[in-house]
Amino acid sequence: MRVLVTGAAGFLGSRLIAALLEGRPDRPDVSQVLGADVVACPIGDSRVEARTGSIADPDFAASLVEPGPDAVYHLAAIVSGEAEADFDRGMQVNVDGTRALLEACRRLPQPPRFVFASTIAVFGGPLPAMVGDDLWPRPQSSYGAEKVIGEMLVAEYSRRGFVDGIAVRLPTVAVRPGRPNAALSSFVSGLIREPLAGLETTCPVPLDMRLWICSPEMATMNLVHAGFLPAPVLEGNRIVSLPGLTVTAGRMLDALERVGGLEARSRVRCEPDPHVTRIVGSWAGALDVSRALRLGFQIDPGIEAIVRQFVNSMPSRQSTAR
Amino acid sequence: MRVLVTGAAGFLGSRLIAALLEGRPDRPDVSQVLGADVVACPIGDSRVEARTGSIADPDFAASLVEPGPDAVYHLAAIVSGEAEADFDRGMQVNVDGTRALLEACRRLPQPPRFVFASTIAVFGGPLPAMVGDDLWPRPQSSYGAEKVIGEMLVAEYSRRGFVDGIAVRLPTVAVRPGRPNAALSSFVSGLIREPLAGLETTCPVPLDMRLWICSPEMATMNLVHAGFLPAPVLEGNRIVSLPGLTVTAGRMLDALERVGGLEARSRVRCEPDPHVTRIVGSWAGALDVSRALRLGFQIDPGIEAIVRQFVNSMPSRQSTAR
Repeated sequence: MRVLVTGAAGFLGSRLIAALLEGRPDRPDVSQVLGADVVACPIGDSRVEARTGSIADPDFAASLVEPGPDAVYHLAAIVSGEAEADFDRGMQVNVDGTRALLEACRRLPQPPRFVFASTIAVFGGPLPAMVGDDLWPRPQSSYGAEKVIGEMLVAEYSRRGFVDGIAVRLPTVAVRPGRPNAALSSFVSGLIREPLAGLETTCPVPLDMRLWICSPEMATMNLVHAGFLPAPVLEGNRIVSLPGLTVTAGRMLDALERVGGLEARSRVRCEPDPHVTRIVGSWAGALDVSRALRLGFQIDPGIEAIVRQFVNSMPSRQSTAR
Repeated sequence: MRVLVTGAAGFLGSRLIAALLEGRPDRPDVSQVLGADVVACPIGDSRVEARTGSIADPDFAASLVEPGPDAVYHLAAIVSGEAEADFDRGMQVNVDGTRALLEACRRLPQPPRFVFASTIAVFGGPLPAMVGDDLWPRPQSSYGAEKVIGEMLVAEYSRRGFVDGIAVRLPTVAVRPGRPNAALSSFVSGLIREPLAGLETTCPVPLDMRLWICSPEMATMNLVHAGFLPAPVLEGNRIVSLPGLTVTAGRMLDALERVGGLEARSRVRCEPDPHVTRIVGSWAGALDVSRALRLGFQIDPGIEAIVRQFVNSMPSRQSTAR
């Protein structure tokens, strides 16, 4: 089967492509991946073709679906911090780009599976302790509002039969390797990553603020799964909140200490940032994911396992983990 | 104060303009109304200026806000039947038109109150018997999906401070005078209007299907109210489900018989239409409107009062009512 991945040069996009190419006996082989991003996607595999351009350009979006993909993974997005700082750019990429890609798919003879990477940032305002699948999202960020609109477009284009869509709401993905990004939740990975690399970092939110997270491995596996889920099991409801773990910054630091020692923990300074606290604190801290689990999506075993998983993937693991 | 009304030539738009011009001691006088629609708005009052064009044209949208309105009532829309038949046109007017108008308002030195006419058609899929304010809408029509996106845009543009918005979800408005329109709920008015005018009509839905309705007078009064409600009372939640009455087609026909006699009722033939039943039946039949009532929105006293109100407004009332 042929697959299109947007945001292919990103952290999740490149992992997703690698996972798709691995293959599994219980699903069709992926023979060709078109990887689109604003920079060339880095995977060196003869089955991957990189395309460079902006998804907000309708001609570029149309060119991406010319091979007639069986599945589209639409991950390209302006992240929360940048969408808050530059409203127009967020709308162009997150709303108009998503619509351009859906429009391009609508012209295909066969409606492809369309996996849309949504987010818990759709939720906001006063939230119940446990957020159900049926809760009206009241996003408190432009990123969240744009993703709600994207979800609604995916649901409507699916109802009309233009695509066979599924919007999956990703938890905050941690621990991401590399450098901090412009997501307001970037610090969540930083709380673990920087101290383990011997770097000082700050925690910008109260230690008891709840976060809803999943590991990069689980996010990747669940994205792949969304591409192969038969449409009838969705029962007309195209939006799925993916499983995650409820943690607090404090509990993350406890796990950091258990894995990396007191020295690692001592590299984290508490330095509240009202902007980050307001927006990230508006996201859902615990979701009812019983439907996602019934649909076969999976869940991390716990925060300490996530930290250990990250340590095992570090090039310099021996110097920091114990 | 200066007011812009889009959809000004429509049934609700023209009533709204008349009500705004009436004035009331408890609110500022409306000194000027710009009435925009695809055809010239019919009110002959020196305070009303008609503008003709499509709201989907950004230049037209921008020209409408040049006088710097204090309040914008955005009623212009492609109705449910037409939006279902012509997807592109529905998206252009209901989504792009709303966004163009919000963008135009964003350029004003002072963010105007922006009243967006939304609808119970945002709801769909399996619904609880009583729909709360916090329920995630799963529209089963393009019209409903487009209105959800409009609501989300109004909420986000308000959160950013570009407008001071409020989206009000109108019940099905009945009894409308005149001729049937392209709304899938058009029959609801027809059930009362046609028999009282001596005309035969059909009921396309099961007699026990629930409908959520309000009178034209109440819809108009509540729209006016939305324009003058102070922003702080909304507590950051810019979407309000307006009060309505839960009726069934059967109960409407009972009221018809009480007001117009058995003869009037005998003019209604049951002739199920699966398309109308599926879509109108997907809308909410009963909503929790406690918040709307707290905010000062009002409710009709009952279905018989609505029918009598309509009869009293008919030019030929003496011949049909008893």
